[in-house]
Amino acid sequence: MEHAPKRVLVCADLDTVQDGTVEPPMPSPTEDSKTSTTAPNAFTCIAPDVRLGKNVKFSKFINLYGCEVGDDTKIGAFVEIQKNAKVGKRCKISSHTFICEGVTIEDEVFIGHNVTFVNDMFPRATTNGALQTEADWRVETTLVKRGASIGSGVTILANVVIGEYALIGAGAVVTKDVPAHAVVSGNPGRVMRYFESRGQQ
Amino acid sequence: MEHAPKRVLVCADLDTVQDGTVEPPMPSPTEDSKTSTTAPNAFTCIAPDVRLGKNVKFSKFINLYGCEVGDDTKIGAFVEIQKNAKVGKRCKISSHTFICEGVTIEDEVFIGHNVTFVNDMFPRATTNGALQTEADWRVETTLVKRGASIGSGVTILANVVIGEYALIGAGAVVTKDVPAHAVVSGNPGRVMRYFESRGQQ
Amino acid sequence: MEHAPKRVLVCADLDTVQDGTVEPPMPSPTEDSKTSTTAPNAFTCIAPDVRLGKNVKFSKFINLYGCEVGDDTKIGAFVEIQKNAKVGKRCKISSHTFICEGVTIEDEVFIGHNVTFVNDMFPRATTNGALQTEADWRVETTLVKRGASIGSGVTILANVVIGEYALIGAGAVVTKDVPAHAVVSGNPGRVMRYFESRGQQ
Repeated sequence: MEHAPKRVLVCADLDTVQDGTVEPPMPSPTEDSKTSTTAPNAFTCIAPDVRLGKNVKFSKFINLYGCEVGDDTKIGAFVEIQKNAKVGKRCKISSHTFICEGVTIEDEVFIGHNVTFVNDMFPRATTNGALQTEADWRVETTLVKRGASIGSGVTILANVVIGEYALIGAGAVVTKDVPAHAVVSGNPGRVMRYFESRGQQ
Repeated sequence: MEHAPKRVLVCADLDTVQDGTVEPPMPSPTEDSKTSTTAPNAFTCIAPDVRLGKNVKFSKFINLYGCEVGDDTKIGAFVEIQKNAKVGKRCKISSHTFICEGVTIEDEVFIGHNVTFVNDMFPRATTNGALQTEADWRVETTLVKRGASIGSGVTILANVVIGEYALIGAGAVVTKDVPAHAVVSGNPGRVMRYFESRGQQ
Repeated sequence: MEHAPKRVLVCADLDTVQDGTVEPPMPSPTEDSKTSTTAPNAFTCIAPDVRLGKNVKFSKFINLYGCEVGDDTKIGAFVEIQKNAKVGKRCKISSHTFICEGVTIEDEVFIGHNVTFVNDMFPRATTNGALQTEADWRVETTLVKRGASIGSGVTILANVVIGEYALIGAGAVVTKDVPAHAVVSGNPGRVMRYFESRGQQ
């Protein structure tokens, strides 16, 4: 993330609603032009450790913590992005999507609605009868490369790389690497065809 | 929408929480009987341009803008309905569901939990390196006809018509038109059988 | 639920925000050590009839009513748990998950992100032209047995029992009973193999 965030947004929770320290919702057109980061609203919870680029735009009901989001990216309603996840510049992250720790999304990626990433292929709630902590598992990683598009309702398993400008069709379940420019659909997802050139339909 | 909404509900965001202009949550049984529209609560964001019929009921954490919702319809938690989407009368829209621009839902339709509609079959985040705007794509449409039921966890691709009283089984991915009274399941969704008469199981 | 909740948490909605009767968000490390139940925050709606065990932990944007949740269980963002659902002790309920009436989840179960349960196999919005009420259908049940893990993006149909320590792979659609220690994936879900011993991978 080349651009340091202009300011760190805090979670607009009950305390901050009451003491008025959060940025105003619905920023007016006359807001300080030196920062183009859209101010959060009362329905947005962005932890202080989130690193935001310039001009990131938010819908309502959003939960972000410990992640990076690049310049000009848009984030839809009911989205959670966990710590140590990275989202690039000029991405669209659509509503109801979950981006977990271990996921890296490069620039200019489209993530549809209700997309779910995975970082643990053998999850368990407990180890020896006690709730698992972070010490009990290794975060598995996922990489979505530049310009790719992930359709709505898609589930992407861990340890997968999705190639540049690939398109994952709505409702697919991606279980293995996807080549650049490939079009994938189904459960499990299979390559149906390839785009002839980048960005082509 | 034959019945003009009695009032336009505004987003219960930080401003309105502070200045007290929103309707009270949890309306009491003695509220004004002339309007049966359930008042929003502090967790509900309904933009001023939403056209609501009579007696629409809301759960919590809802994001509606620019859409129409008919009389007596119920809307669950974590639902987003976008501009230019239309939902008929006496529908149930269950939690975690996303209804996008271009979707028309007729009367008496059941939409399960976590249902996702699609309006762009070849989505991209950017065009020539700049974030796409509305000028960069054509909204594709979906029609769900009277009395149909969409099971939970279903994804419905764009350019699809779902016939009257059809039933889409939970977890299906609908990729093409569904005849009236058909029962569909799987990914891709296939017709398994037909109801003999409307509404029959 | 052996342990009576120390206190009943109320929905932090507009009224309670205004009159200050809700528990403070973001409890400080110095809070009363006699109760380890994490206090709700301004984004959490927990109805007064929810029965919580000890030390239940909540993320943001949560809607619970009429359900039971056991000791030490963690509940993620954008989760709804309906009345008459039961969640055991030391479970993890991940973000975007919907647990409906009729679902029983035993102890030490992992529920991934965006998991959807079902309690009505033939849903309809209306009966004879009027919106269905609870009198119009029978709640169908689902049981997830001790130590099982449900992957992210899974849909579980009604009338299903998932055996102890079974693992449902991400994106699967479970349509019938799953034996103990089985590993299931696909749509419809099929048993791929068995763990040799409980908790094994």
